[in-house]
Amino acid sequence: MELYLIRHGIARDRRQWDGEEFERPLTEKGHLRTQQVAARLKSLGLRFSTLLTSPLTRAKQTAEILQEAGLGQSQDFSPLAPEGRLEDWIEWYSQQAEESGGPIALVGHQPDLGNWAEKLVWGENNAKLILKKAGIIGIEFPADRPYLGHGQLFLLISPKWLL
Amino acid sequence: MELYLIRHGIARDRRQWDGEEFERPLTEKGHLRTQQVAARLKSLGLRFSTLLTSPLTRAKQTAEILQEAGLGQSQDFSPLAPEGRLEDWIEWYSQQAEESGGPIALVGHQPDLGNWAEKLVWGENNAKLILKKAGIIGIEFPADRPYLGHGQLFLLISPKWLL
Repeated sequence: MELYLIRHGIARDRRQWDGEEFERPLTEKGHLRTQQVAARLKSLGLRFSTLLTSPLTRAKQTAEILQEAGLGQSQDFSPLAPEGRLEDWIEWYSQQAEESGGPIALVGHQPDLGNWAEKLVWGENNAKLILKKAGIIGIEFPADRPYLGHGQLFLLISPKWLL
Repeated sequence: MELYLIRHGIARDRRQWDGEEFERPLTEKGHLRTQQVAARLKSLGLRFSTLLTSPLTRAKQTAEILQEAGLGQSQDFSPLAPEGRLEDWIEWYSQQAEESGGPIALVGHQPDLGNWAEKLVWGENNAKLILKKAGIIGIEFPADRPYLGHGQLFLLISPKWLL
């Protein structure tokens, strides 16, 4: 029962972006680096049975890059938008995890992903995980336990270490 | 202020080893994989200003491989032996960190390394970190705070992801 929390790649600077915050896209470097991360995950034999993304452009682009690399089929999932609540998706997750059996990936934003990871592993959030853009958190759950506070952390990595 | 906790590489099976437990060595695969990890760390530009190891053979061999890769000068440090206590080295560490300024690496054993990491980051140990052989934990400390409970986790990785 593996859950991967993946932060979107490097996006355009908020201060230099005139459009809607919702639509702020990845930079060219963000595209490239995310593609490299995706190729690396693929070469490690990873495939997500479910690949959900925040509906914001920078996250969707990240999930599409993962999809193009053959890692899974990207789907929008609104609870992953910024300031989403774990409680809004954890029940869905537990059902999905039991049905699919394979690894699940959620593409989203900081500080939400780090907060969620801490709640899933330690039962509470203390803002102690540093997750860079296009970085990945990996959590393993026992098959027979409820999720909150029962995960174990097996991966925390930024692209620098992966590429 | 970066601290790296590095678990020794794959060692001979305890049940098939007739010698002293203290002297149980790395296997051939353990040597090779640790060399690959060391080369990868070197290629990332890492260098430890201090590189301390548990005095047990499997840890010392791991630290020597890191030294041969040019990552630092290996030194024995008995508090890193199995069942060592964080309290026996944290004061030394805080002095060393201030003097050296560079990243410090400690080579040792599970479950000690995972326990220490949780205490340094969250202030208490809940056995929530999965650290494989030749795997690495990275913790960052603010310059002006005491260590216990004030670190942030920026890296948790097994060789599979690094190679």
